[in-house]
Amino acid sequence: MNAPEKLTLFTLADWSAQQLARIEQALSRWVACPNDAPAPAGLGDAMRYAVLDGGKRLRPLLVLAACEAVNGNPHAALRSACAVELIHAYSLVHDDMPCMDNDVLRRGKPTVHVKFGEAQALLAGDALQALAFEFLTPDDETVDAATQARLCRMLAQAAGFQGMAGGQAIDLASVGMPLTSEQLHEMHRLKTGALLQASVMMGASCGAPSLPVQHALRDYGSAIGLAFQVVDDILDVTADSATLGKTAGKDAAQDKPTFVSLMGLDASKAYAQELLARALASLDRLEADGLHNTSALRALADMLVNRQH
Amino acid sequence: MNAPEKLTLFTLADWSAQQLARIEQALSRWVACPNDAPAPAGLGDAMRYAVLDGGKRLRPLLVLAACEAVNGNPHAALRSACAVELIHAYSLVHDDMPCMDNDVLRRGKPTVHVKFGEAQALLAGDALQALAFEFLTPDDETVDAATQARLCRMLAQAAGFQGMAGGQAIDLASVGMPLTSEQLHEMHRLKTGALLQASVMMGASCGAPSLPVQHALRDYGSAIGLAFQVVDDILDVTADSATLGKTAGKDAAQDKPTFVSLMGLDASKAYAQELLARALASLDRLEADGLHNTSALRALADMLVNRQH
Repeated sequence: MNAPEKLTLFTLADWSAQQLARIEQALSRWVACPNDAPAPAGLGDAMRYAVLDGGKRLRPLLVLAACEAVNGNPHAALRSACAVELIHAYSLVHDDMPCMDNDVLRRGKPTVHVKFGEAQALLAGDALQALAFEFLTPDDETVDAATQARLCRMLAQAAGFQGMAGGQAIDLASVGMPLTSEQLHEMHRLKTGALLQASVMMGASCGAPSLPVQHALRDYGSAIGLAFQVVDDILDVTADSATLGKTAGKDAAQDKPTFVSLMGLDASKAYAQELLARALASLDRLEADGLHNTSALRALADMLVNRQH
Repeated sequence: MNAPEKLTLFTLADWSAQQLARIEQALSRWVACPNDAPAPAGLGDAMRYAVLDGGKRLRPLLVLAACEAVNGNPHAALRSACAVELIHAYSLVHDDMPCMDNDVLRRGKPTVHVKFGEAQALLAGDALQALAFEFLTPDDETVDAATQARLCRMLAQAAGFQGMAGGQAIDLASVGMPLTSEQLHEMHRLKTGALLQASVMMGASCGAPSLPVQHALRDYGSAIGLAFQVVDDILDVTADSATLGKTAGKDAAQDKPTFVSLMGLDASKAYAQELLARALASLDRLEADGLHNTSALRALADMLVNRQH
C-alpha cells in the first residue's frame, strides 16, 4: 500500500480565518486611532466605519497569499495588505458619494456620506489614501527601505491616473455610451484590475522573486483582476441586493456597459471560467520549480470566480 | 577703507524665478501626461488645470530652499517640491467642492468642479494625491531608497489624519462654534501648518542634516506654518477678491473662527511679525556653524508674512 504522494492539508476556510484575524486586528489597531493621537473631530469614526467590520478583504488576502508563495517578509506583507484595503475602502467611500454613483447602501450598511455627511466622507476618503502610504513606511526595522519605496511606487501607480482613478474616469465618461470590448477591458483593467494585480505584485515584492516568477504572478493577477469584474457584472444581474450587500441591477438601471450587456450572460460565465483557467495555468508555471506554495493563490482565484456575492 | 565683510548677492526675485522655472517645467512634464500613457477620459485635463498655471508655489519653494540650506540631493528636492504642491493642489480641489466650501473662484479662475464637474473634480483630487507618491518613488538611481521611503513617510503623515485632513475635519466641525485660542492653533497647525512644515523638513531630508539643524528647521517650519495662516486671516478682511484671486471676506460670512475674530486685527498683525522673528531666530541657530545658506529660507519667511495676497 502506497501512502498518498502529497497530503494536502490546505483548506481556504482555515487559511482565510487565520489571515483575516491578522488583517482585522491590524486594521483595527492602525486605522486612525494610534494611542497617542486619534483622528480629530469625528474623522476617525468615519475612517473606521469605512474600513472596519465589512468587506471580503479579497485584496489583503491576495497580498498575503502572494507573499506566502515567495516566502516574503510577513511584516511588509501585512502592511501592504492593509494599505491596499485602505485604497479600496477610500475608493468605495468616494464612489458612493452623490456626485458619483450616489449609492446609499454598502455592505448592507448606510454608506459613509449617508452616515457622516458628504464633507466628512470626502475627508475620510482622502485621509485613508494618505494612511495607506503611512502603513507602507514604518519608521522601524521591520521593513527595509528599498521594500518600502518599491511598495509605495507600486501602490501609487495602481491607485492613480494610470490605474484605479483613471479607470473610474473612463467609467464616468462611458455611462450611456456603447463601448467596444477593447474599451470595456481597458476600463476594468484600470478601474479594478490594477489594484487587484498590484495586491498580488506587492505581496510578491515582499520577497525577492525571480523574473519568471514575477511574470507568472503578474499574469495570474491580470487574469483574476479581469475575472473579478466579469463575475461582478454577472452577479449584478443574477443576485439580489440582500445577497450582494449593495444595490443589485444598478449597472443596467444606469445604462452602464458591462460584460453581460456586451457578451450576454452565458458567454460571460464561460469567459470567467476561462480566466480562472488562465490564472491557474500561470501558477503551474510558477510551481514548476517545486519551491512555491501556491495553495492559497489557487483557492482565492477559485473562490473569486465562483462566489455568489 | 574696509571691503564689506560679506557681499550678499542673493535676491528673492532672482532665486525664485530660477526655482519656479524648474518647478513649472517639472510639473508640466510630469503631471498626468507621460508620453507613453496620458491620463484618460479628461482626467488629465482636470489634473493639469488644478496644478498648472497658478499658485504661488510657496511649498515647493520652501522645499528647494531647505534642501539648499543642507546641500541636499537636488533630484530628491525637485520631486519633493512637486509632490507637496500636488497634495496642496488636490486639497484645494476637494475643499472648493459644493459639499465643502462651495467656492467657484480660485486663483482668479473657475474652480475645478465648476469647469469639469464634481465627479471629475473628486477623481482629479484623488489621482493627484496618488501622483504625489509616484513623484517621490522614481524607479531609477537619482534618489536612494532610504530617502524615497523617508519622504513618503513625511508626506503621508503631513497629508493625513494627523495633518492636513485632520485639520480640515476640525475646521468642518468648528463652523459657527467659538474656539479657544488653543483650539484655533491646533486646527491650523494641522490644516495648513503640517504641510508647510513638511515642505521644509522634506527639503532638509534630501540631505543629511545634524539633529540640531533638523530641530532649527522644524522650529522655522512651525513658525512660518502658523504665520501663514495668521496672515491669511488678516488678508481675508483687509484685501479684496481681485487681489486675492479668491473670494475675500468669506471666513466672516461663514462665521468661521479666525485669528482676527479671536485676537482682533492689530494683535493679529503683531502676532504675524512675532512669528516671523521666531522663524528668523531659528535660522540664526542654524547658521551659527557658518555652513548653511539660509538666504532663501529667510527671504521666503519675510515674503510670506509681508505678502499682500
